[in-house]
Order: sequence, then C-alpha cells, then structure tokens
Amino acid sequence: MTAHFRKIAILGIGLIGSSLARAVKRHGLAELVVTYDSNTAHATEALALGVVDQLADTPVAAVAGADLVIFAVPIGANEELAAKVGPHLAAGVIVSDVGSVKMAVIRDIGPHLGPGVHLVPAHPIAGTEKSGPTAGFAELFEGRWCVIAPPPGTQPQAIDRVADLWRAVGSDVEIMEPAQHDRVLAITSHLPHLIAYTIVGTATDLESTLRQAVIKFSASGFRDFTRIAASDPVMWRDVFLNNREAVLDVLQRFTEDLTALQRAIRWGDGDQLLDLFTRTRAIRRSIIDAKQA
Amino acid sequence: MTAHFRKIAILGIGLIGSSLARAVKRHGLAELVVTYDSNTAHATEALALGVVDQLADTPVAAVAGADLVIFAVPIGANEELAAKVGPHLAAGVIVSDVGSVKMAVIRDIGPHLGPGVHLVPAHPIAGTEKSGPTAGFAELFEGRWCVIAPPPGTQPQAIDRVADLWRAVGSDVEIMEPAQHDRVLAITSHLPHLIAYTIVGTATDLESTLRQAVIKFSASGFRDFTRIAASDPVMWRDVFLNNREAVLDVLQRFTEDLTALQRAIRWGDGDQLLDLFTRTRAIRRSIIDAKQA
Repeated sequence: MTAHFRKIAILGIGLIGSSLARAVKRHGLAELVVTYDSNTAHATEALALGVVDQLADTPVAAVAGADLVIFAVPIGANEELAAKVGPHLAAGVIVSDVGSVKMAVIRDIGPHLGPGVHLVPAHPIAGTEKSGPTAGFAELFEGRWCVIAPPPGTQPQAIDRVADLWRAVGSDVEIMEPAQHDRVLAITSHLPHLIAYTIVGTATDLESTLRQAVIKFSASGFRDFTRIAASDPVMWRDVFLNNREAVLDVLQRFTEDLTALQRAIRWGDGDQLLDLFTRTRAIRRSIIDAKQA
Repeated sequence: MTAHFRKIAILGIGLIGSSLARAVKRHGLAELVVTYDSNTAHATEALALGVVDQLADTPVAAVAGADLVIFAVPIGANEELAAKVGPHLAAGVIVSDVGSVKMAVIRDIGPHLGPGVHLVPAHPIAGTEKSGPTAGFAELFEGRWCVIAPPPGTQPQAIDRVADLWRAVGSDVEIMEPAQHDRVLAITSHLPHLIAYTIVGTATDLESTLRQAVIKFSASGFRDFTRIAASDPVMWRDVFLNNREAVLDVLQRFTEDLTALQRAIRWGDGDQLLDLFTRTRAIRRSIIDAKQA
C-alpha cells in the first residue's frame, strides 16, 4: 500500500491540517501522526481531540524521523518554517503542503530542501469558512479535487505517493503545472473571495440603520457572500500577497467587465444586460454537467 | 379570517407566482385562483399541475371579479399590464406584486388605478435560481421575510390584508418605506447579483482550456456565484433598469472599496487586507445571531 507512511508530521493543525490528520488516522495511513503548531492552544486541543498521536515542542522535533512532512500553515509562514526544518530532512523524505497558491510554495520551501528531498506541493480544494482544529473533520476531502502541482523534475514516485494519500482520504487527484494552478485558482477562488470580502466590507461601512436592515434581509443574496467573507483572515491575506500577479490580472478583467455593466445600467441598455445574464446560465449548466454543482 | 379572498388573480405564473398560487391553495386562502400569463406554455403547465383553478385568455378576464390582483411578472412588464387591467378594477380591490424593486412598481402601476383601488406593493424575499411554474413550491415563503412597502396614505386595512396573506403562507412581514426598501435591496440583493453575473461573465470569456479548468475546480468559491448568476435574465435586467440610482450608488461605493484592495495587493499592504478580512467576520456573526444564516 503506497499510501502508507511511517510518520507524518503536520506543521499547523488548523481546519485543513486537523482534517487531514483525522482522515489519515481513520484510514490507517500512518503509524504515527505528529504535529507542531505555534498556537499552543490549537496544538493542545488537537491532542485532546485525539486528532494526532503526539505534539512536538518545535518544528524540528516534529519532523524528526518523518517520511512525510506537510506544511499546513498560512502561505506567508512557509519560508521561515522551511528554513528551520529543511536542514533536518534526510534524502527520501517527501515534503508537501495544502496551500491555495503553488508557485509561492515552490519559491519559499524549495530552496531550503537538500538533495533527494522531494517537494510535492498539493492543494485539496476543500474547506469551510470555519477555522481551527475543532472545525476539522475526516470527511472534508471526500469527493473533492486535490490538485498536485509539482515543480519540473520532481520524482514520479514521490508524486504517486502523495497522490495515493489524497486518493486514500477520498479525493480525486489532478496533476497541474504550478503556474496554471495559480491562474485557475485566481479565478475560481481568489477573486470570488476578494469580491466577497469587498462587498461585505462595503456593507460594514454603511450607516447603522441601513446596516441593520442589510443583516435582516441578507437572505436575498448577500448572505452567501458573508459566508465566504468569514474565512480565515491570515490565510487569505497570505493568498493575495502570494498570488499577486494572477489575482491582479483577473481583477483587471473583472473590473473592465463591471464597468461595462455599470455603463449599461446608467444608459438603460437592457439588451446588453440580457445578453450577459443569458450567457452566464450556460456556465452554470456546464458546472452541473461536470457534477460540481 | 382576514387572509381569505374570494378570487385571487395572479398575473404571471413563474417561480414566484406559481409558488404563491400553490401556497394559497394549500392554506385555503382563496375560493378561486386564476392566472394569466403571456407565456401560454407556462399557463397551461400551471393548470395541468393543479397550481391554479382557471386560466384566463386575457389579463382583463383574469382580474374580472377578483378582490386581490397580484402582479408577478418582470418589473418591466408592469406598466403595460396595469394600463390594461387598471380601468377594470372596482373600488375596494387590492393590487399587490412580488417584485424586487418597489418605487418602480408604485410609479408604473399606481397611475392606472382608479379611486378606492388599493396598491399594496410587496416583496417576498425568497426564490431560487430556477424559473417557470414547474420550479415553484408551496413552502418557498415559509420562514422568509416579506417586505410590504406601501406608498404614503395607503389604507391600513388593505395593508393588513396583504400582510395577513403573507403570514398565512408562512412569512414574517416587515413594513418599510419604498425608497428604503430599494436602497437595502440594492445592497443585499441587486449588487450581489450584478457582481455574480460579472464574475461568471469574466470566466465565460476566458480561453477554452482555462475555462474548462475553471468549471472543473469551481467548488473553491466560484460555484456559489454561478448559482446566483443562473437566475432569470429578464427579471434581473428589469431590476437593474428600474432600481438604477440605488444600484449605481452602491456600485460606486463597492468599486472604490475594491480599488483600495487592489492597491493594497499591488503594494503588498498585508495590514490593510488583514484589517478588512477581520472586520467582515463580524457581519457574518451578526447574521448568524439574527438567525438569517
């Protein structure tokens, strides 16, 4: 069984890290699951919940003897952590992660790994708007995509082992080029989150009476945006800072399109509105056909 | 029982009209429910489904003898319809609607009603992204808000009868000034829909490979927008054309806020991003506290 590891070290035990730890234990994919989290309350909680077998006092202690090390911290924390643990990883160890940006992971972790250490970045496309180890659950990845985005030249066997792990916790695996992953996610995930944060922020700044009414009648569309905009702030800050070019590019396209719509509303151009609103229905149908709805 | 009518004429038997017809029949709120719809396929479907008791060949035939007339057509169709039926409505008849904009309804229907005919505009804040009479269901309004936005001077008893009808189908009723309703809905509903249509449109215009990947990985946030952007195109065109000032005003605020975020991303201002992303969580908590989540 290739999806079995001796010791998995999970660095960061939030929503995703703790869900993966739970799934690994449920499916018997490791003899030992150890975590380190700089948030000691979270680490203690995870141990108390039985999510991990052991806590480590330091990142270096966590990775000692591990054959799989998974970075599950906000992307901005990767480099400092990699600088600490990198020198302690022997040839043959696989290093992976769960972040929503892949080029930055290769940039930040790669240089700290010695020869023969395999970097296999991964991105489980799964999550909720909740944070912390109590929010995690073993089924989070079932039926969801996990994108593996290895840098050129990565050992195929190392890719296979990470792919097998994700399949074993219930995910469908897709291999993508890191840059392509970052472009796609900028559209499907990063821009939608940025927009949701913005619109909820705009509502936050309203005068008090209006804001109360907005909360009361949020079911008319706004509510869906507030759920998205309740996601972990540090994680999302790091996503935007570390996928800057792709996000700015897609944001530019979006802004142009929105400006065109604004103009159509101002000048009463109903045909333009109707044309767009009709075209967008087709994309919804494609998503339903692709069984992603 | 004040929520009982002799004959209710529902003009337009789409998602909302047919859901209301079903709820009226389930709760026994009228002796007779009649509809007229210019889409004869929809009208025939509604009769076959048992959603209404009778079809009328013309709007005038539909309202003959009705003590409650409900406009359930796209907002842009109100005026022509009101011009037709208005002269045939006797004093004492109540005219209401279900539209997402209220000032435009008063502007378009009001002038066509004779003395003693009561205009009581209403807006059930409920719906799905689906359209047509087969998409309707009797429970659609249960536990949802219905805003009644009467023009100044409306007879209180007429307001009460419409309010009682909506309470009888399971809704909570709120009375608001029409202009305030339109401002609030511009934020909670119209802007979110506009944004969703835009972002899905932006994705539609991508080159084919990228678009396929976007559909495949839509679960990462984009999917929620495509559901919203699958709503009825004509209905939404009319909303934007008829709540122009309020939509343009809130769109302007949104664009300013988005530009500020864009700048923060470009210049790597993590503190500004973190500050916003933290504040938006509070609004989500307010919505959960208000039991609207």
